[in-house]
Amino acid sequence: MAAYVHDVFMLFGDSITQGAWEPGRNGFGQQLSHVYARKLDVLNRGYSGYNTEWGLPVFKQIIAKRTDQHAPKIRVLTIWFGANDACIKPSPQHVPLDKFASNLKEMIQLIKSPESDYYSPETRIILITPPPVNTYQRRADLEARNPPLKLDRLFDVTREYAEAVKRVGRETGVATVDIWSEIWEAAGEDEASLSQFFPDGLHLNASGYEILYKALIKTIGDVYPEVHPDNLGFVFPPWADIDWNGDTVKSLEARRT
Amino acid sequence: MAAYVHDVFMLFGDSITQGAWEPGRNGFGQQLSHVYARKLDVLNRGYSGYNTEWGLPVFKQIIAKRTDQHAPKIRVLTIWFGANDACIKPSPQHVPLDKFASNLKEMIQLIKSPESDYYSPETRIILITPPPVNTYQRRADLEARNPPLKLDRLFDVTREYAEAVKRVGRETGVATVDIWSEIWEAAGEDEASLSQFFPDGLHLNASGYEILYKALIKTIGDVYPEVHPDNLGFVFPPWADIDWNGDTVKSLEARRT
Repeated sequence: MAAYVHDVFMLFGDSITQGAWEPGRNGFGQQLSHVYARKLDVLNRGYSGYNTEWGLPVFKQIIAKRTDQHAPKIRVLTIWFGANDACIKPSPQHVPLDKFASNLKEMIQLIKSPESDYYSPETRIILITPPPVNTYQRRADLEARNPPLKLDRLFDVTREYAEAVKRVGRETGVATVDIWSEIWEAAGEDEASLSQFFPDGLHLNASGYEILYKALIKTIGDVYPEVHPDNLGFVFPPWADIDWNGDTVKSLEARRT
Repeated sequence: MAAYVHDVFMLFGDSITQGAWEPGRNGFGQQLSHVYARKLDVLNRGYSGYNTEWGLPVFKQIIAKRTDQHAPKIRVLTIWFGANDACIKPSPQHVPLDKFASNLKEMIQLIKSPESDYYSPETRIILITPPPVNTYQRRADLEARNPPLKLDRLFDVTREYAEAVKRVGRETGVATVDIWSEIWEAAGEDEASLSQFFPDGLHLNASGYEILYKALIKTIGDVYPEVHPDNLGFVFPPWADIDWNGDTVKSLEARRT
């Protein structure tokens, strides 16, 4: 069995999280795995197609109760939903805006409320807004399917869900990475120009993930510097620090990061 | 805290394992993280500069004892050492060939012996040989440092350590990926031509990792098909399988993979 030697950086969200290690995308999951190597285990808890309504019952299973003394601590947790909640009716993925916001708040309170069974004061939470939708690309993608499908997301609707994430962040005191605005600005506030960041109008390509990764690492440095990769040590020592002529085994004992 | 919902694919080794999520390398860690998403957590247990002598005390800390009922099962374990053990004297990284082989056997017996405190019959072990060394590149790299360093690895010595890994695999009945031979053949059995697979004569670039990833996935499919990614299901259901009009929460319960 795998022993608990590393605390955890958990990435919770939908397909844009699940796909964050995909070859050729230089996704934020892969990049975090690299910079946190030997410091924190970066865990993929992304679920393609999921909205917050389906994510909430899953969340209660992937986090452990405070009574579970054996479970690794979650030192950083990203919560990134909205791209599917913002689907328009009659999509089964649609979640009304108010419900979306209350679901996010419930996830946050599960971790932050001292009354919660899952209370975890050492967990730094970062909300991420959904990226903007490029409906030119998305419509073309759906119309090319067999049978063709109708457009299921609208630019202005997803923007409202991004605004709701920022509101939840303010109301709960949780740091928020506003990737909606970062990508929108990088595209010169022109919807058709968003195609440089998406393969399909919805998921991020390498350029899109690069914006996200940089914004996320900056937020960690600004708001939670104690868990920035530069400020965490290795659990096991760099090889030059091993006491190879003396008590080698003792010098190789795991350290808390 | 992070709950135990995923079993583990553990990558144990030296810097060639540690660096397997590095941007631009399309490393085997990243690729495994992608194909095992929602199935197994792929854990980086790579330690730059380490040999088996230093790896062994670390190994006993990163695997859990059989009495620990709360620890995630290791379903697949790669053990990849030799690149540093094969350093020549007076390098402190040097481990004599016999000791290298006996250290690997001790790691394997910790998992496979029913008498071991760490006995784990559900763990499929895969040994990986060290890659060949390109001493043209390695010498140039070391001579360019300040102060310049002498060549610390020899082509024929590393080959002996690769042979020893294969011997240990045969003697213990453990599957072995012979990346030494795969890369050597891909280079037309010409040392200078190895440069297409290494940035520095020692570590793998994207072309080198691609050979390793393909060989590893093939070995899994041939020897341990039950843990090939195609034969493992998602812990949480694909979104189309969610019972969104009925008992949604029940349909979202974690499954054993």
